[in-house]
Amino acid sequence: MAVYKAPLDDMRFVLNDVFAAEQVWASMPATAEVTRDLADAVLEEAGKMVEGVMLPINRSGDEEGCQWQDGEVTAPAGFKQAFRTMAENGWTALSGNPQYGGQGMPKMLAVLFEEMMHSANTSLALYSLLSNGASLCLDAHATEELKQTYLPNIYAGEWSGTMCLTEPHSGTDLGIIRTKAEPNGDGSFAISGTKIFITGGEHDLVSNIVHLVLAKLPGAPSGSKGISLFLVPKFFVNEDGSLGERNGVACGSIEHKMGIKGSATCVMNFDSAKGWLVGEENQGLACMFTMMNYERVSIGLQGLGLGETSYQSAVEYARERLQGRSATGVQNPNGNADPIIVHGDVRRMLMNMRALNEAGRALSAYLGMQLDLAKYSEDDAQRAAAEDRVALLTPVAKAFFTDRGLDNCITGQQVFGGHGFIREWGMEQLVRDARIAQIYEGTNGIQALDLAGRKVTRNQGKSVQAFLSEVRLWLEQEGDNAVLASVRAELDAALALLAEATGTLMDQAGRDPNAVNALAVEYLDIFGYVTYAWLWARMMVAADGRGDSFGANKQVVGRYFFERLLPRAQSLLTQMKAGSATMMELDADQF
Amino acid sequence: MAVYKAPLDDMRFVLNDVFAAEQVWASMPATAEVTRDLADAVLEEAGKMVEGVMLPINRSGDEEGCQWQDGEVTAPAGFKQAFRTMAENGWTALSGNPQYGGQGMPKMLAVLFEEMMHSANTSLALYSLLSNGASLCLDAHATEELKQTYLPNIYAGEWSGTMCLTEPHSGTDLGIIRTKAEPNGDGSFAISGTKIFITGGEHDLVSNIVHLVLAKLPGAPSGSKGISLFLVPKFFVNEDGSLGERNGVACGSIEHKMGIKGSATCVMNFDSAKGWLVGEENQGLACMFTMMNYERVSIGLQGLGLGETSYQSAVEYARERLQGRSATGVQNPNGNADPIIVHGDVRRMLMNMRALNEAGRALSAYLGMQLDLAKYSEDDAQRAAAEDRVALLTPVAKAFFTDRGLDNCITGQQVFGGHGFIREWGMEQLVRDARIAQIYEGTNGIQALDLAGRKVTRNQGKSVQAFLSEVRLWLEQEGDNAVLASVRAELDAALALLAEATGTLMDQAGRDPNAVNALAVEYLDIFGYVTYAWLWARMMVAADGRGDSFGANKQVVGRYFFERLLPRAQSLLTQMKAGSATMMELDADQF
Repeated sequence: MAVYKAPLDDMRFVLNDVFAAEQVWASMPATAEVTRDLADAVLEEAGKMVEGVMLPINRSGDEEGCQWQDGEVTAPAGFKQAFRTMAENGWTALSGNPQYGGQGMPKMLAVLFEEMMHSANTSLALYSLLSNGASLCLDAHATEELKQTYLPNIYAGEWSGTMCLTEPHSGTDLGIIRTKAEPNGDGSFAISGTKIFITGGEHDLVSNIVHLVLAKLPGAPSGSKGISLFLVPKFFVNEDGSLGERNGVACGSIEHKMGIKGSATCVMNFDSAKGWLVGEENQGLACMFTMMNYERVSIGLQGLGLGETSYQSAVEYARERLQGRSATGVQNPNGNADPIIVHGDVRRMLMNMRALNEAGRALSAYLGMQLDLAKYSEDDAQRAAAEDRVALLTPVAKAFFTDRGLDNCITGQQVFGGHGFIREWGMEQLVRDARIAQIYEGTNGIQALDLAGRKVTRNQGKSVQAFLSEVRLWLEQEGDNAVLASVRAELDAALALLAEATGTLMDQAGRDPNAVNALAVEYLDIFGYVTYAWLWARMMVAADGRGDSFGANKQVVGRYFFERLLPRAQSLLTQMKAGSATMMELDADQF
Repeated sequence: MAVYKAPLDDMRFVLNDVFAAEQVWASMPATAEVTRDLADAVLEEAGKMVEGVMLPINRSGDEEGCQWQDGEVTAPAGFKQAFRTMAENGWTALSGNPQYGGQGMPKMLAVLFEEMMHSANTSLALYSLLSNGASLCLDAHATEELKQTYLPNIYAGEWSGTMCLTEPHSGTDLGIIRTKAEPNGDGSFAISGTKIFITGGEHDLVSNIVHLVLAKLPGAPSGSKGISLFLVPKFFVNEDGSLGERNGVACGSIEHKMGIKGSATCVMNFDSAKGWLVGEENQGLACMFTMMNYERVSIGLQGLGLGETSYQSAVEYARERLQGRSATGVQNPNGNADPIIVHGDVRRMLMNMRALNEAGRALSAYLGMQLDLAKYSEDDAQRAAAEDRVALLTPVAKAFFTDRGLDNCITGQQVFGGHGFIREWGMEQLVRDARIAQIYEGTNGIQALDLAGRKVTRNQGKSVQAFLSEVRLWLEQEGDNAVLASVRAELDAALALLAEATGTLMDQAGRDPNAVNALAVEYLDIFGYVTYAWLWARMMVAADGRGDSFGANKQVVGRYFFERLLPRAQSLLTQMKAGSATMMELDADQF
């Protein structure tokens, strides 16, 4: 079985040493009560919960999967009880609005909890995370009446939420959805249509499920400007708050998937189901965008969290498995072989995973901080800057966390040799579970297009410039630091490379309509490696004064990143320079 | 469901246009009867067979898996009948020794058939491929009596073969196996021990199973020099050729795996099972090496074949799935969206897969040719040169085919978006099936170590020099070709990069015992990309005179390889230059 302990030391390091989170929180009324001690206690308890409640039913949940019968869906054994325990201890309310029963914890802290949940049991985590997304959206756009009716119950984990976007013919391209909403004349709407790939669309963990559904009103403009958002409960809610009759929404079937088998992925049929408008008419996509950045970071964390479990499990195996002898001579004279952690190639795999995971954790906290600043800061300029940073880095985080997360799951599995392929060992489940994160919540290709198109090209590179200014400001502030000096040349070269890649992208985009789409994935990967380089420099500087083995190890892993992972950006830039011509040259029938 | 048609045009192109196979075959008595027409007919019939017999039971085989009950293993429905059909039509005898009923077809042709089998149904293919390996080993090392008893039945597909190497504590490190062989005094031996991960160790496709088992004789030297090889049949064979009593070997259980679920992966218990020595005492590993290069190429083809199916399936989906509009304007005015093949990022994925698959196919044929020359050439110098080339390139092919094969399966799955994660669509099975090929038959890390250590460093780089000389000779011969000139600068740079990487490896290895292990994987990848660059240049030149769309498409895909895939080698060299110091710096308990 895969092993996992919440990496609390590293999480505390990121919050306290790297980003001085307490000062950030103290600067905003909404988070002023969050102290270092409180955050520490939350992380400590979160670690106990995920290790004690979620992790033990991760393998069994994969083996058992979800069961569909006559429209009812049963989650794997133990999931219902575990979700109740999570709810009763407040974990489903962690970052909810306190006005409706949430705990109002900052996203900067929540990202670390979400990473832990994905590490321990990503299928079970999804029931909670989808509810978070739905409640974020309701909190921002629903009427006061809807909020009072639904939010407290979702935060309490009594009810859960879904996002119903995709239809059989319409995934990435939401402009062509067919689900209809007809006014009932009483302020409600009759929703009809079929939605697919609905995570948690039906299950037995809670007593009611609140669907947020994209649909088209009669006479709505075509395309993405004619989409509205509706709240459609599974059971109606009586005036006294008790549950009433069943609404006209039913689960037609569940998908048989490669992984996340404990998460119910549903086909949902809406047959004149009664729904209520959330936000303005035809503004459904805009409402979705409110929570999209949060959700994309959360799904990014699925890759990061699973990669961490893969790393920890591979380390344990590499320390215990005896096979071959060290190239430098016998290390384990009492055994007939040395532990495989002595071998360079095994080290390479472990160091790759670790260097990527620790940088990813830092980026997730940084991005959580920016989301908090964008939402809670009372300084207009700071809020605008944070919004800009969130817009730029969210697609990077979602795609880069999940691409590198799959890499790390595959790498950890490889450390196990043949045992990595055997189900009982748990490593292959990590690969299967991680794979979806590159696909849903906007495929990673779409994230790259969002970055290279909307966030860079159409933004005339201003957001990139602002980000690079922040990096340069930090470099000035830390100018004399000896640790920074040791990687300064590589970091400067990396920043120059990102600037050149941005120039290449914008230049080609100005001449070639296919360029953005053709260069986007390489550009996003460059962005990821260069951002990680900056964060590694920050971590090395932050760890420099500690004088402990944790700090010393950070220097080693950081240097490894600069030596062995950052160079990947070089090739990506060369690839970008090739442009789109050859890629687009063949006719479709020549493939 | 995944789709697949045997890529016969490309296979013929590789055989005829690129390598002039008929001339090679004509040069050796053992293959002189193989004409272009015969090879063509074999490929044509092979395509029909894999498409009609193997492909239709690939998905169902995955869903059903193998069943173990009371020591008996049942393969998925249809596997037994399909294997009989394959056997009756001679496919299990294709490259067998004609002296014992084989068809004696060259490996250069067999690799193309093996690629097809893996494309269509890799689980079913394995039953045949393991038998090939066992018969190769028997043919080279067994006594005449054993050969006459066993080979005709294995070639006929009446019986199958296994390779029993791994034990629970001993995988990569075979020197520490515990299975014992005690002389019975009658020329036979009593074999006792437990072997794991035995592909086809027990199943219902054939009436007898012939195990080749590594074991230690009493008083044998410790380590890999004290291992002997034994033939242990499931059923004894009577003097009249009929099957006799059951031997003391039994299947204790089968593994539950990530993929290749239709292939029975068995725990085999040998309890004083009667066996016969194959080859000399204590020369078991050397006997294994005879077939190891063949088997490693065959397992490489698993990655290549599955990557081809992924590519073909993704192309079909990308042509049919309507989503979004082309960046250059509406392409499908009658629909509400364009087929996704118009989008740059989808093109990028398809072109990546195609450029890697077609180069891999060329390398597999080249390597098949070298294996044939090494085995059948009557020219000592040619045979020695071919042996040298096989030794050098086999680890490259095994690891690079399977690493890029998994990449291609993941990429093809990504083209399908959410549907790629759903079992019914068949794309996720390709990923799960491909994953094992990076692990077994020597992990890809071990392949890299074999290359960087035994084949390069300990060989003082002579084999690399010989290979580069062949490339330079070809360049001289084609010196004036205009197509070659168009990629000549990139190819020359690539060859220089490989030379520099080889120098870096050897230089560091001379100073640092960890260097080979630490740099091996990057070095192997460089070797793969540079070798593919040479083969792409050869293919572009060979296709130049055709004047058809096939030839024109080759130029486009070749240019794409030089522009977008070959640059990956640059970063890998930079990574190598970092050496092993940082990688090895942490103590084991600091992970």
